[in-house]
Amino acid sequence: MLPISEITKKLSINQDYLDYFGKYIAKLKLSLLIDIENNKDGKLILVTAMTPTKQGEGKTVVSIGLAQAIEKLGKRSIVTLREPSLGPLFGIKGGATGGGKAQVLPNEKINLHFTGDFHAITSAHNLISASLDSHIHHGNSLNIDINNCFWPRALDMNDRALRHIIVGLGGSANGMPRESSFVITAASEIMAILALANSFLDLRNRLSNIVLALDLAGNVITVDQLGITGALMVLLNDAILPNLVQTSENTPAIIHTGPFANIAHGTSSILAQKMALKLADYVVNECGFAADLGAEKYLNIVMRQSNLKPSVAVLVVTAKAVLAQDNQNSNNTYETEGFSNLAKHIENLKKFNLPVVVAINRFPDDSEQEINKLIEFCQEIKIPVSLVNVFNQGGEGALDLASKVVNAANETDLSKINSLYPNELSLFEKIEIIAKEIYGASSVELTTIANKKLKKFTELGFSNLPICIAKTQYSLSDNAKLQGAPKG
Amino acid sequence: MLPISEITKKLSINQDYLDYFGKYIAKLKLSLLIDIENNKDGKLILVTAMTPTKQGEGKTVVSIGLAQAIEKLGKRSIVTLREPSLGPLFGIKGGATGGGKAQVLPNEKINLHFTGDFHAITSAHNLISASLDSHIHHGNSLNIDINNCFWPRALDMNDRALRHIIVGLGGSANGMPRESSFVITAASEIMAILALANSFLDLRNRLSNIVLALDLAGNVITVDQLGITGALMVLLNDAILPNLVQTSENTPAIIHTGPFANIAHGTSSILAQKMALKLADYVVNECGFAADLGAEKYLNIVMRQSNLKPSVAVLVVTAKAVLAQDNQNSNNTYETEGFSNLAKHIENLKKFNLPVVVAINRFPDDSEQEINKLIEFCQEIKIPVSLVNVFNQGGEGALDLASKVVNAANETDLSKINSLYPNELSLFEKIEIIAKEIYGASSVELTTIANKKLKKFTELGFSNLPICIAKTQYSLSDNAKLQGAPKG
Amino acid sequence: MLPISEITKKLSINQDYLDYFGKYIAKLKLSLLIDIENNKDGKLILVTAMTPTKQGEGKTVVSIGLAQAIEKLGKRSIVTLREPSLGPLFGIKGGATGGGKAQVLPNEKINLHFTGDFHAITSAHNLISASLDSHIHHGNSLNIDINNCFWPRALDMNDRALRHIIVGLGGSANGMPRESSFVITAASEIMAILALANSFLDLRNRLSNIVLALDLAGNVITVDQLGITGALMVLLNDAILPNLVQTSENTPAIIHTGPFANIAHGTSSILAQKMALKLADYVVNECGFAADLGAEKYLNIVMRQSNLKPSVAVLVVTAKAVLAQDNQNSNNTYETEGFSNLAKHIENLKKFNLPVVVAINRFPDDSEQEINKLIEFCQEIKIPVSLVNVFNQGGEGALDLASKVVNAANETDLSKINSLYPNELSLFEKIEIIAKEIYGASSVELTTIANKKLKKFTELGFSNLPICIAKTQYSLSDNAKLQGAPKG
Amino acid sequence: MLPISEITKKLSINQDYLDYFGKYIAKLKLSLLIDIENNKDGKLILVTAMTPTKQGEGKTVVSIGLAQAIEKLGKRSIVTLREPSLGPLFGIKGGATGGGKAQVLPNEKINLHFTGDFHAITSAHNLISASLDSHIHHGNSLNIDINNCFWPRALDMNDRALRHIIVGLGGSANGMPRESSFVITAASEIMAILALANSFLDLRNRLSNIVLALDLAGNVITVDQLGITGALMVLLNDAILPNLVQTSENTPAIIHTGPFANIAHGTSSILAQKMALKLADYVVNECGFAADLGAEKYLNIVMRQSNLKPSVAVLVVTAKAVLAQDNQNSNNTYETEGFSNLAKHIENLKKFNLPVVVAINRFPDDSEQEINKLIEFCQEIKIPVSLVNVFNQGGEGALDLASKVVNAANETDLSKINSLYPNELSLFEKIEIIAKEIYGASSVELTTIANKKLKKFTELGFSNLPICIAKTQYSLSDNAKLQGAPKG
Repeated sequence: MLPISEITKKLSINQDYLDYFGKYIAKLKLSLLIDIENNKDGKLILVTAMTPTKQGEGKTVVSIGLAQAIEKLGKRSIVTLREPSLGPLFGIKGGATGGGKAQVLPNEKINLHFTGDFHAITSAHNLISASLDSHIHHGNSLNIDINNCFWPRALDMNDRALRHIIVGLGGSANGMPRESSFVITAASEIMAILALANSFLDLRNRLSNIVLALDLAGNVITVDQLGITGALMVLLNDAILPNLVQTSENTPAIIHTGPFANIAHGTSSILAQKMALKLADYVVNECGFAADLGAEKYLNIVMRQSNLKPSVAVLVVTAKAVLAQDNQNSNNTYETEGFSNLAKHIENLKKFNLPVVVAINRFPDDSEQEINKLIEFCQEIKIPVSLVNVFNQGGEGALDLASKVVNAANETDLSKINSLYPNELSLFEKIEIIAKEIYGASSVELTTIANKKLKKFTELGFSNLPICIAKTQYSLSDNAKLQGAPKG
Repeated sequence: MLPISEITKKLSINQDYLDYFGKYIAKLKLSLLIDIENNKDGKLILVTAMTPTKQGEGKTVVSIGLAQAIEKLGKRSIVTLREPSLGPLFGIKGGATGGGKAQVLPNEKINLHFTGDFHAITSAHNLISASLDSHIHHGNSLNIDINNCFWPRALDMNDRALRHIIVGLGGSANGMPRESSFVITAASEIMAILALANSFLDLRNRLSNIVLALDLAGNVITVDQLGITGALMVLLNDAILPNLVQTSENTPAIIHTGPFANIAHGTSSILAQKMALKLADYVVNECGFAADLGAEKYLNIVMRQSNLKPSVAVLVVTAKAVLAQDNQNSNNTYETEGFSNLAKHIENLKKFNLPVVVAINRFPDDSEQEINKLIEFCQEIKIPVSLVNVFNQGGEGALDLASKVVNAANETDLSKINSLYPNELSLFEKIEIIAKEIYGASSVELTTIANKKLKKFTELGFSNLPICIAKTQYSLSDNAKLQGAPKG
Repeated sequence: MLPISEITKKLSINQDYLDYFGKYIAKLKLSLLIDIENNKDGKLILVTAMTPTKQGEGKTVVSIGLAQAIEKLGKRSIVTLREPSLGPLFGIKGGATGGGKAQVLPNEKINLHFTGDFHAITSAHNLISASLDSHIHHGNSLNIDINNCFWPRALDMNDRALRHIIVGLGGSANGMPRESSFVITAASEIMAILALANSFLDLRNRLSNIVLALDLAGNVITVDQLGITGALMVLLNDAILPNLVQTSENTPAIIHTGPFANIAHGTSSILAQKMALKLADYVVNECGFAADLGAEKYLNIVMRQSNLKPSVAVLVVTAKAVLAQDNQNSNNTYETEGFSNLAKHIENLKKFNLPVVVAINRFPDDSEQEINKLIEFCQEIKIPVSLVNVFNQGGEGALDLASKVVNAANETDLSKINSLYPNELSLFEKIEIIAKEIYGASSVELTTIANKKLKKFTELGFSNLPICIAKTQYSLSDNAKLQGAPKG
Repeated sequence: MLPISEITKKLSINQDYLDYFGKYIAKLKLSLLIDIENNKDGKLILVTAMTPTKQGEGKTVVSIGLAQAIEKLGKRSIVTLREPSLGPLFGIKGGATGGGKAQVLPNEKINLHFTGDFHAITSAHNLISASLDSHIHHGNSLNIDINNCFWPRALDMNDRALRHIIVGLGGSANGMPRESSFVITAASEIMAILALANSFLDLRNRLSNIVLALDLAGNVITVDQLGITGALMVLLNDAILPNLVQTSENTPAIIHTGPFANIAHGTSSILAQKMALKLADYVVNECGFAADLGAEKYLNIVMRQSNLKPSVAVLVVTAKAVLAQDNQNSNNTYETEGFSNLAKHIENLKKFNLPVVVAINRFPDDSEQEINKLIEFCQEIKIPVSLVNVFNQGGEGALDLASKVVNAANETDLSKINSLYPNELSLFEKIEIIAKEIYGASSVELTTIANKKLKKFTELGFSNLPICIAKTQYSLSDNAKLQGAPKG
């Protein structure tokens, strides 16, 4: 590792814009954006994947290796990633900092408390929760409906016993009893908000507009009505600053915020990406899970909020994942279902007019035959494909991929990259477009409750918002067991 | 503010022992203690107070001002304080960083997330909670008794609705339903443990021995049996390191851990004090609330765990506090009950053979007459007394106090400073000694439940431990409304 | 009212078989059945209805009036009814004792505590509940899975706050916390069991086999395993005895047990019907709600348990109910949807080979035209139809109906009356038959949970049981808003 | 057993006043009281006891035997008893119907559902509970404070899991979540009210004044405000009628209501006693537990409500009970503590100016020596004493007791029998009088909560009511382990 000040020199960042956390980590002040606002934007590269297995296909390691490789080609590059959650750390194995010769450092710090962003979000989240119950306890002048409070509590911990709880027991000093729940911090709405904020002011607006509950008359209750927006801003004052670290080959990495891609929009913060694009020629940004989740949400939600457009998508595939799509249907050979899944993800990305490069992330156990079939398949459908091995070789293992990606990026006409739907469509129509175009549904049927909710949201004036669908990551469809490219 | 590196120079601390958090805060690595172990220990000064009002009597501001004054006398001095809790921040006004010309800086950081110690403690605490419920959920091979789980959850937030909750609802996927509660992080047993730990190894031992629950046969269940001691150590790896900052006059300050003095032992960490004593001639250490709480617990509990002995106690008094002890009994004049309270605290400190200096913390509204009577009273009972005004004058305002304290400290024979009871007494006898000697009780009567618990603790082999009593801070007795020096 | 002893004389019941409850109510001892076992069975008449409105179509009043009319024709007749629940008494208006000149007496007693049968069932139900939690509390030697306890508590009271509760709070003396619920006594499984029992011994067997919970290994836990079957029998010793009262025209009436027809099988007890058939030439037995519920369940469930077969079904219709089926679809005229509903219920009853007589229960507001159209419709489809007015005229108002019903009953070949499915079909196949044949479904789709449950039931050896479907009473389909005879 | 009509003949009760429940049980209509109002009142005999063992000392069997013996002396006598609770039936062994040759019949009916009185009380109790939560659910126009609802639910079942529950879970359709509890029916306030009611009108008044909760302003919420007093009266219409049965020697017995003596006033209904006194020369009425509970409450509470005065008290003692008071203090001989307990109960009864006759209820295992010592002790303190053996001999076994009791009763001047305190004293003074005079306390100290409650009750205008203390039955003091006649 180089001292982080060496990395900032490489990016020509003035020391005044830095807040050090030890020798190898620095937060980037938002005023930096003003200083560099006249810089030309670099090219944005989205890294996504085919439908993954439970172990993951190595999107993070490929993102890091690709950024390292681009630097080896003589370009300035930055990789932008999400911060890992402490929650699952002691549950599921493995952090989200890459591995081998393609990792971000210092990885123990990044995987633990890092710069305290998640803790600050937890505090802010729970300040809202406490204020909500406190308001109800102290006379409830807003007439909040106890049975229509949506705001949970949050903890950066996998604690199943907190998923459904009753609070406010023990007599009137402890407030009013009601059913509540805890979510993991990464699933907090504040996490999503922080990741989508474009500035301090934008963050303040988004916080103040959070809908917590309905009152007895059915009107929304917002954070602003509790009078705590200022306190939240104080708590999140540092958490909004992107965190600068480096990769194992000293390529700059910005790691900031951590929304999940199955329930939220699943990518690093807009501020991290904006800074990176002003500081580098190429920014490699990872999106969570497969292209039906992270990439769809990037292109329909994040792009709309940030006005940042990617120039190319890298679709990470593995022989293992192709196999996994196949192996429950006994008669199928290696390719059938797996290749149909891969083809569907490519088709989906093309719907946004985004060029695609396939990166085959090689694992030690993969057979030559499998890899060859994969390459042939891509060649047949005329998609650039490249075999990478960054875990063992670092940036060297992705030089071919890097040049294919750079070439593709430079040929893209950004004006043609577009979301799948305009704001003006109804909520139901937007859902229908995503389900039919991306998931392969033939039609969409709403439950009575979902129907009522959409109506309520529309009444409340929210129908112009984009749609964020919570869905399994293990199938293009809504059923984790349906493989390949299910239809209908 | 000077850069924190300037402060470390003053203390001759090698840069290798520092972990920077921005320009003005550094964590001190524990290996520093080895480097300086041959330094001569400085003199330890305990700052305590008479029974306080709700607004407090200014112990923190006096501690900071006194350290500044001692430095002005040409001695090396350090003030050691507790970290403030985020919890009450948005409830009760005012942090715990002093004020005016006697404060610790940068105060906004210290009052907010600081170096993340409280967040790490929260995470560690809740990892235990989650593991406990998870163990019960996964077959409960330890036969943990659901109705005898003592370990709550923790959050650094004043949230009354979480004081009494039911967890584990919603079917078997969420575990077993049971009653539980959240405490504020400062009240976590881990906070107390961290504050009392002498080293990494000692911390590990204390963590592994935490008693969480009983099994169905009545045996204790410890953290060690859950197999998570190692994970806790990883989470607390940085939180155990003392935090170095400076005062508004650039006097070094070490601020570390934050146990409350009414329910826990109420002072800065042993490691903070040990480091300070090796680095300075005089260490000013604040104890929480009045001398019946913070000081009693320091002398009976902390001293026993650390082998550190104070040379002198500074008893902070104010005209306002004297008045408050008086004003509920209509006929009393200014002095009667207030002076009896002051006299009782002095008497209590003398029982430990500790010299006492009274520091009158002057407030703008105090009348000349009140202050004079206070001084006369102290002179009559032959206790050194000094009028201080550090809020407005900084160290200058406490030069007289400083010299009286330094003189007293230098005349103390540490071998005579002793706890009030030996380990060997029974738990009940220890309680009796504290209640009679310190609180003024004539006898101690246990409720049936308390009696059962003492029996159980004794059976389990805990009878050799010192006693930490949870008690109101607003009276020497157990009834917040009894003033002065209640007896019987 | 005549003294009940006068009624028993009419039925030639020896006084030894009676237990008096005041002057007008008597319980019939089960030994009576032995005394009269050689009597020839009378003809059983099922009274059912088309899809009802919320106020009901007067099945009870028609049943009572019809029995009175048959007696006027010189035949011995008895009406058999369910006992009303105290629960909804203070909620929904109106008891279930008929009205005007066609009611059962003494109606205030019958509508209140009557002979205490519901109270005894409540006690028995809750003895099981208490024993279940007590077993768990006292060491749980059966390894009952707290998250797989199906047995609720019961109260004969509409109390919404008890629908979802947590029990066992307050420390170990109160047992283990778990989620539970209260059902209304009429919905107790014991109510259904009592209504289906053929004898004391059969009751004991059914009680001992009740499945309360699963153990941790997935095996069933039954009442027998708790060792309380004997205690339950003691509590239900009197409740199993049918209650004899009279109608406002002194026709004998047996009123016994009260299972609901939407969630349970919905008719009077098998013992009541057996006794009545031995004592009278014609027994008029009411089934709950419309023919898709009460009659379907009678013919598929009760008939299978009792070997009693009806000779004729009386389908009660009203102009009001026909109208109600129509009026949500703006363009429809009086008849369309309403007649299709009526026709479907007739078609359904014919599937069991049961002759049908339509009884039009006239209400004061009905127009001549509506009534005439109804009569014409029945004549067109060649179903005997009769206009009745028993509320105002008593038995006189149903003489025409009585003679049509008696004629139809006497022509029936009971050997052709059959259930819709054999025991041997799978649970899913049975569900499918009912849904397709009776409700008009085109196919049946199970939720994941329902699927798992059917599998589990089959594994546990329950696949040979008949199916009792819980379903809305306001539509032939599963959606209360679909009118007429919905298809597909 | 004789038919109950034979018993009514003996008492000259006209058949019109009877409601039969089978052949051997009849309810007595309240209009009977008008018919017999000019009859002369008989003498009332209270049966009470020394501090009992867990098995009980046989007060019920002695009461029944004594009534039988008085009849053998040629006097008309009736025994009045409480109805047994179904609740403990399957918990603790043994009903409350006496035994051997001194029992009330038909005992299985009496011990089970009897005439349904307890069920009716359960229904009435829970109608209030449901109405309370329903009112809160439907807008809570009375502003009831969820955290100040005192009214529990009730079930005639020992179910520990229902002692502390949370109701109203599962969303807004099920109302508002709050903490609640179930009591056993015998502990319902309605049980006490029914037992104390003097007429239908008095019952209505008492029901309408029940205090259920406070509103948010601290005012009381009564049953009347919920508008359900009429419905409660309908439910309790039969339960208010006393139940007539007979003893094993055909002596009339009236068994009605069942308030516990430890938490409520513990004796049969005032209406039962009033009827009995008009129908017989001597009425033997049992009071629950020892003389510090049942008798104290009879004389201070019941007597005040009914204006009925006893002429004599029979104190039941056993050698076993004397022994039990002794045997925990190792060095004591048979008599010491046991006799002091007996003497204290006699002293207590004398404070009301009530003559006392001691009845020694002989058990098979008692030694001659023990019995003799007991007799000697009574003779020494000049209290009439008689050895009884009614279990084996029926009335014959209590002839001596009967004549001593009759003699004592005839010499009593009722005008001298008085309560220990007037209504006008403060609540605290009344408590003090009972604790000092009856329990042997030296002084009374209130907890903070108790103090607040007494203040609140006084504010609400309840200070003129008598005091009903809930207390252990196993000691004269408040500590079940203190034996004999504890003092101070």
